[in-house]
Amino acid sequence: MSFQDVLEEVVADISAYRGQGKVAAYIPTLARADTSKLGVAAVLGDGKSHAVGDTDEAFSIQSVAYVFTLALALQHHKSALWNHVGREPAGSPVNSIIQLEMEKGRPRNPLTAAGSLVVCDQLIGRRSADEALEELLQFIRTCAGDDNIAVDETLAMSESKAGALNRSLAYFIAAFGNLQNPVEQVLSFYYRQCSIAMTCRQLARAALFLAFDGTDPVTGAQVTIPSRSRRINALMLTAGHYDNSGDFAFRVGLPGKSSVSGAIIAIAPGHGAVCTWSPGLNAAGTSLAGAMALERLVERTGWSIFV
Amino acid sequence: MSFQDVLEEVVADISAYRGQGKVAAYIPTLARADTSKLGVAAVLGDGKSHAVGDTDEAFSIQSVAYVFTLALALQHHKSALWNHVGREPAGSPVNSIIQLEMEKGRPRNPLTAAGSLVVCDQLIGRRSADEALEELLQFIRTCAGDDNIAVDETLAMSESKAGALNRSLAYFIAAFGNLQNPVEQVLSFYYRQCSIAMTCRQLARAALFLAFDGTDPVTGAQVTIPSRSRRINALMLTAGHYDNSGDFAFRVGLPGKSSVSGAIIAIAPGHGAVCTWSPGLNAAGTSLAGAMALERLVERTGWSIFV
Amino acid sequence: MSFQDVLEEVVADISAYRGQGKVAAYIPTLARADTSKLGVAAVLGDGKSHAVGDTDEAFSIQSVAYVFTLALALQHHKSALWNHVGREPAGSPVNSIIQLEMEKGRPRNPLTAAGSLVVCDQLIGRRSADEALEELLQFIRTCAGDDNIAVDETLAMSESKAGALNRSLAYFIAAFGNLQNPVEQVLSFYYRQCSIAMTCRQLARAALFLAFDGTDPVTGAQVTIPSRSRRINALMLTAGHYDNSGDFAFRVGLPGKSSVSGAIIAIAPGHGAVCTWSPGLNAAGTSLAGAMALERLVERTGWSIFV
Amino acid sequence: MSFQDVLEEVVADISAYRGQGKVAAYIPTLARADTSKLGVAAVLGDGKSHAVGDTDEAFSIQSVAYVFTLALALQHHKSALWNHVGREPAGSPVNSIIQLEMEKGRPRNPLTAAGSLVVCDQLIGRRSADEALEELLQFIRTCAGDDNIAVDETLAMSESKAGALNRSLAYFIAAFGNLQNPVEQVLSFYYRQCSIAMTCRQLARAALFLAFDGTDPVTGAQVTIPSRSRRINALMLTAGHYDNSGDFAFRVGLPGKSSVSGAIIAIAPGHGAVCTWSPGLNAAGTSLAGAMALERLVERTGWSIFV
Repeated sequence: MSFQDVLEEVVADISAYRGQGKVAAYIPTLARADTSKLGVAAVLGDGKSHAVGDTDEAFSIQSVAYVFTLALALQHHKSALWNHVGREPAGSPVNSIIQLEMEKGRPRNPLTAAGSLVVCDQLIGRRSADEALEELLQFIRTCAGDDNIAVDETLAMSESKAGALNRSLAYFIAAFGNLQNPVEQVLSFYYRQCSIAMTCRQLARAALFLAFDGTDPVTGAQVTIPSRSRRINALMLTAGHYDNSGDFAFRVGLPGKSSVSGAIIAIAPGHGAVCTWSPGLNAAGTSLAGAMALERLVERTGWSIFV
Repeated sequence: MSFQDVLEEVVADISAYRGQGKVAAYIPTLARADTSKLGVAAVLGDGKSHAVGDTDEAFSIQSVAYVFTLALALQHHKSALWNHVGREPAGSPVNSIIQLEMEKGRPRNPLTAAGSLVVCDQLIGRRSADEALEELLQFIRTCAGDDNIAVDETLAMSESKAGALNRSLAYFIAAFGNLQNPVEQVLSFYYRQCSIAMTCRQLARAALFLAFDGTDPVTGAQVTIPSRSRRINALMLTAGHYDNSGDFAFRVGLPGKSSVSGAIIAIAPGHGAVCTWSPGLNAAGTSLAGAMALERLVERTGWSIFV
Repeated sequence: MSFQDVLEEVVADISAYRGQGKVAAYIPTLARADTSKLGVAAVLGDGKSHAVGDTDEAFSIQSVAYVFTLALALQHHKSALWNHVGREPAGSPVNSIIQLEMEKGRPRNPLTAAGSLVVCDQLIGRRSADEALEELLQFIRTCAGDDNIAVDETLAMSESKAGALNRSLAYFIAAFGNLQNPVEQVLSFYYRQCSIAMTCRQLARAALFLAFDGTDPVTGAQVTIPSRSRRINALMLTAGHYDNSGDFAFRVGLPGKSSVSGAIIAIAPGHGAVCTWSPGLNAAGTSLAGAMALERLVERTGWSIFV
Repeated sequence: MSFQDVLEEVVADISAYRGQGKVAAYIPTLARADTSKLGVAAVLGDGKSHAVGDTDEAFSIQSVAYVFTLALALQHHKSALWNHVGREPAGSPVNSIIQLEMEKGRPRNPLTAAGSLVVCDQLIGRRSADEALEELLQFIRTCAGDDNIAVDETLAMSESKAGALNRSLAYFIAAFGNLQNPVEQVLSFYYRQCSIAMTCRQLARAALFLAFDGTDPVTGAQVTIPSRSRRINALMLTAGHYDNSGDFAFRVGLPGKSSVSGAIIAIAPGHGAVCTWSPGLNAAGTSLAGAMALERLVERTGWSIFV
């Protein structure tokens, strides 16, 4: 059976879950998303992409962006980044401020909103937020092999307006001295990274280097060094899906990152990268149909990293 | 270079960490442990065991036992077990009762003390604690291929006496109706599983099935079904090392389980199982020299599951 | 209008609240309590008692006992008692273990279950629990001027059996080294103090000394020194009613202590002591009709300490 | 002995505590405060003021302002205010955001920073912050009988700049929909109320109505209705001093409110109002010498509300 056939069977298998779950309600654009949408795209080591469903429709990548921002910030700061953010799973719902207080403004890991705010601040460094964002966009465009990727600035603005909780998190971190740039600068960068518009196909391609120890198997370019690639995967495995990261590891068995727009990227080391998109979310904020599709895909391919 | 040579180099590399860290102070036997001890044993797919250092000295396996008790309880109860315990990382220090209150007596995962108490209770079921313990011992003996493995009953007794915190956890869970057996029965089983005495070599051998999708590669016996083996590995990866599980995944990149006696088992899928033992612990309760040895071993062998 | 008339009007005023609220369900005896029962008794400075309703029916005094145990423990240990327990309001529901963890086994105040366990332990000291209980009973009998007051031992036994949560609290405190006697000893004392059977009339009489700066206005005996009497009143005001202590101070404006059996004692400094009893509880565990009766009584008498 | 003599003896008694404690470090103006300063002023029912020490030096009243803002907001909104803020003691350090998360953005009481933010928002209502502030200032001027009381606008600005933690609290509350005005508007009002500059003598005079059931005993004007005056006193008693409110009630036995600038107001119902000022704070944020002076004053006058 061809890989394309496998993808198609996977999508057929989980059709009952299409339209299930709830969209994220706090941002008007996301609140209007069509939960019947479903796309599954995979890019394998040979660079070929396979796609089923709504894989060429763009959506805001939201917290999937954290992964790329983290990869880039690690290139700049190397292990010094860990002075500002931990690498332990959070053990609490998305955006909880409780642990942030207990741990005195040092977020537990870079794949939570609080943690990503700190990573954004570090990536900005002494530059303007605009300059840093341009670097991030260029990085993602290179990874995806597509120069058309851009920020949906209207969305970024509307998210920033609705973003009282993240603003609270940012000021809380600042109160503990863990932001070097003005809070509004950091938030501006943060919301624009979340508002980068991409398709499933683009995202799977952009994440491909993480399946090949940091090197793009198509271009041969080393995007990041091997040890860093492994570590980003480890962080996604333990903390990539809010408070159902453990469940995702248990059921799917691949490093991955969920976003509230309904996207999930998953990394199958040595095989390829997959991106699913379906806006209906489970109670913990992960795409319901997307996670189900990935679970089936791994069952059929044997790609679990735990065997 | 032979695998034995690799192990020896690893132990030489990390010799500076020998004697570092602190022993667990709350149990007299553990408090007296010699921090200069260090053993590293690996059993590969061909069944051969390789060992360097103090690998034939027995120690109480403590929370490494949780893994075997879990494997056995899953055979009995299958996915019904998850009605009683979650599978998310805890995001808090070992033995914290805070989350237990927030989540109304359902521990976040089976690899914390609270979670293992619930798993023990489920494994006991309607039998006596003694009967269930006999089954567990027999299970571990079979996995290890060694009929001499036994409980250090004196230690179990002394741990039970010192165990006010676990007793508190158990009564707390009982208060929420999540224990079916009397608390003291469950604690009796719990402390005896922790007091099973084994060597590094025995533990590595006993865990080997988890590196081969549930099947013992030497005897060919299916110890557990593949999906369950993967899931136990996933749980170890996200929650096997108290509040430094994320760090262990980040640095070592293998599923594993630490114990306060200074043991760590690590699973290299497709390759083999490793057990290190060194009683000096880091601040989070994981063997300092042991984790360092595993980090180096994975660097040299490329066994990380994230590549 | 005579004081007796005032009491009768108060009871008439709040008749709509009779039968409202829920009984405490976790102890069979309490679960069967008749929520239509209502008694209001007051003893004034001249020693005369005034009573309306079910004021001669005995009930277990439950956490109202904490006040007497505290008074007696302070006689023994004076300010050294505060090494073991704080005097801040808890800011959380009854029996929460979260703060106990945050504050490392030192309960926030002596009028919570956790705090009273510590006070009980201190009162026992190096004696047997039986001996200490005999002293407490004698103390209460003297305060109430009634030698017939006794423990309902059957109830104490049944509460101890049902008491997984308090048992958990006690072991938790013990784990932090804040109990000097064996946990089961402390619990035995604790449950028997809670199971002392008294009537409204007896309780109001027993608490009278707190309205007269520590001296029984009838016998002239100094039960406790003035500063201690004031401090016990202060503790009742800030922490006497679980997580509605602030609301009780706001609405009633007198020091008091609620219990899950539906009793409330209230102290009107310079005037007298009041005890209400009605088993229907509000969401926070305070007698609904009882608190309402006290609110009206203070409105009519002007006894608020805040004017 | 005249009351003036009593005050002088009290100040002499506690001279050893002068200069003890630490100033609040997070605001430059406060950080530079002279810890040797000490003032004690009392205004009695006859309107006479008695003063010892630095009682005519102005300082920012900081959270003492919460009391006046609350009194005014209650006049506007009456009991509807309690839909937005609770009246239970917090049981946690000042500015903790943990409980705010647990209780979904409804602060536990109006005398915490979070609670006062909500009260400020309610007092602003549909007006501009400036208009509401003008009303508050006029209210305080009337209470104090002094038209010169004003906001230190430079301080307000510098506090707002330094105020990341309060900004975080405000956005957090806004995220739960519990602010009706824009966060920056509310903060602007909040910081200006805190920056009102007053002397000990002015503050004692301004608070006098709370000692006489809501009526100014000098002018005869009813500042607030009796029941509201009692309730404000009850709130100060249970929650007026951060996480040492219980201790203050225990030691001093009067309703009061502390501020980080080192001021404390205390209400002696039926007698008068007292204000102490000394910038050295104890670990919980209450003026060390000030609390000590109040404790001695109550011992000498017998003003405790608990007798």
